[in-house]
Amino acid sequence: MKIRLISTGGTILSLPGERGLAPTADGSGIARFLSDRFPECEFSADNLMSLDSSNIEPEDWRLVARAVCESFDEFDGTIILHGTDTMAYTASALAFMLRNPGRPVILTGSQIPDADPCSDSRSNLAVAVAAVANGINGVTVSFCNKIINGTRAAKSSSSDMDAFESVGAPPVAVMTAFGLEVNEARRHEPFTESPSPDDCNVCPDVALLKIIPGTKPDIFEALKNIGCRGVVIEAFGAGGVHCARRNLAQAASRAVSGGMPIILRSQCPDGKVDLNAYEVGARLRDAGVIPVRMTAEACVAKLMWALYRSPNVSEVEKIFRTNIAGELVV
Amino acid sequence: MKIRLISTGGTILSLPGERGLAPTADGSGIARFLSDRFPECEFSADNLMSLDSSNIEPEDWRLVARAVCESFDEFDGTIILHGTDTMAYTASALAFMLRNPGRPVILTGSQIPDADPCSDSRSNLAVAVAAVANGINGVTVSFCNKIINGTRAAKSSSSDMDAFESVGAPPVAVMTAFGLEVNEARRHEPFTESPSPDDCNVCPDVALLKIIPGTKPDIFEALKNIGCRGVVIEAFGAGGVHCARRNLAQAASRAVSGGMPIILRSQCPDGKVDLNAYEVGARLRDAGVIPVRMTAEACVAKLMWALYRSPNVSEVEKIFRTNIAGELVV
Repeated sequence: MKIRLISTGGTILSLPGERGLAPTADGSGIARFLSDRFPECEFSADNLMSLDSSNIEPEDWRLVARAVCESFDEFDGTIILHGTDTMAYTASALAFMLRNPGRPVILTGSQIPDADPCSDSRSNLAVAVAAVANGINGVTVSFCNKIINGTRAAKSSSSDMDAFESVGAPPVAVMTAFGLEVNEARRHEPFTESPSPDDCNVCPDVALLKIIPGTKPDIFEALKNIGCRGVVIEAFGAGGVHCARRNLAQAASRAVSGGMPIILRSQCPDGKVDLNAYEVGARLRDAGVIPVRMTAEACVAKLMWALYRSPNVSEVEKIFRTNIAGELVV
Repeated sequence: MKIRLISTGGTILSLPGERGLAPTADGSGIARFLSDRFPECEFSADNLMSLDSSNIEPEDWRLVARAVCESFDEFDGTIILHGTDTMAYTASALAFMLRNPGRPVILTGSQIPDADPCSDSRSNLAVAVAAVANGINGVTVSFCNKIINGTRAAKSSSSDMDAFESVGAPPVAVMTAFGLEVNEARRHEPFTESPSPDDCNVCPDVALLKIIPGTKPDIFEALKNIGCRGVVIEAFGAGGVHCARRNLAQAASRAVSGGMPIILRSQCPDGKVDLNAYEVGARLRDAGVIPVRMTAEACVAKLMWALYRSPNVSEVEKIFRTNIAGELVV
């Protein structure tokens, strides 16, 4: 089995510096560990970048996606070492850019640096290798004995070892005392073609706005003025925003008419949206906002990917209605 | 026992309209129900407003807070009927404006309108009355058999009956088969003076910005230009934001130097922040942002309350370091 290892940095590759941890290690120690533990596998390691994942931006997603594409057919799977902070964003972005790839592409990292003897890195890596061996295709996250669909992953804790959650569905696979148990119902049909570098692009001009009582309707115009071409809003409850003292629904309607797609998700963790239940929701439905039940990370990545493909509001809506990589919670 | 009932609207008081549910009922049916069930109590009902809580804005918090102040000493407790969508925001705001009042002030509502026979309203109301009877002082939320500190409440589900979570600590009290079990350790010392209408004010000019890969550094200037005087940011993991391709840390630093307080919380649900662990965090610490572990709702309400008291960054920081109503998670 041939596995490609791509390093991007993160806690897993961090060493103590003068001002705190920084991702200054390369992936050679990890490659050596994997070769020792899995002598039947051939690992090929690349250091693509050395970034704290807070610094991994949409332009870096492109570089990672293209690196995966490059030699996609030569390997049985790819394991990407990545910081945990934005791992769920990158996982979502890769799932769209690689169009739900037909081989395993697994992001992993750790809460404690690999250089620390208490690190969780080695078990996260081993479970990732097991997922490649089990042919879990598509983009996933390996963390704390779970293999999570990339578009469903969300970082749930900044400190616990069990740092990622599978939102709206059980994990694709779980490591148990009896080996990796794959939830066959969660294996989604991957696209059959190899991913193309042409798909590996996004428009980074997106903002995520969490609505609060008093949010100013001018915000959409202000975001447009700094170059945002699409907005994800996190609305109250089943999808409400204010429309009385400050008419945010009207401002959203104006922004959509002006060509800015607005994706609406709930700020409640369970994320159910229903714009038909309440009068305040009906206004947003009429305004043409696109209600979805998806993680914030998947919303942002999908909007960036959709906007690169088309700036048109109705095209973006069509893309959002299409399940690309298991992101739609039904 | 004398209990004041203040209606503000919400699902609990909603009736079906042409475009979905709207809060058109008054509180008289609920007052009648309570008088029947608790004949030993005297209920006094006021209809203050009839709003879907998506439409309850900071100006409305003031009206509610002042209504509670008005006849605070005449009643053993106040029960506020409120929509669930922004109940946690209002609860936090009241906790600060009423300065952790020395009598029970309990917000409640329901997921299903009181007019529906399956409504959860009656049990939520009954538990609120039990909390008044048990002298649970301060601002709390009564929902699904839990009494939650107002500054710790967060709406966790737009659809489940168990819609509110007590973040970072167990509820103050729980209704059980053996009656209301009060968690004595969670009863916090209330301020002893009666709340003053002078404290019942907030500056609504605040924005909540959830950071995503690619967030534009111009955003702080853009928010200032539309009149925002303070910002709550939801950063990655333990408190990271990007500072490489786009230098958000530098932009935040500039905004703080320019007099705009920036509160930083984590976008991870567990909310632990540590700006000392990573290099990217150290930049924010040096920039003068104020890291906190609090609900988003409490952050927003506290910043609005703090900004009304002082526009000064270091004064705001001092207020944030002071535990007003049990909001600080330690």
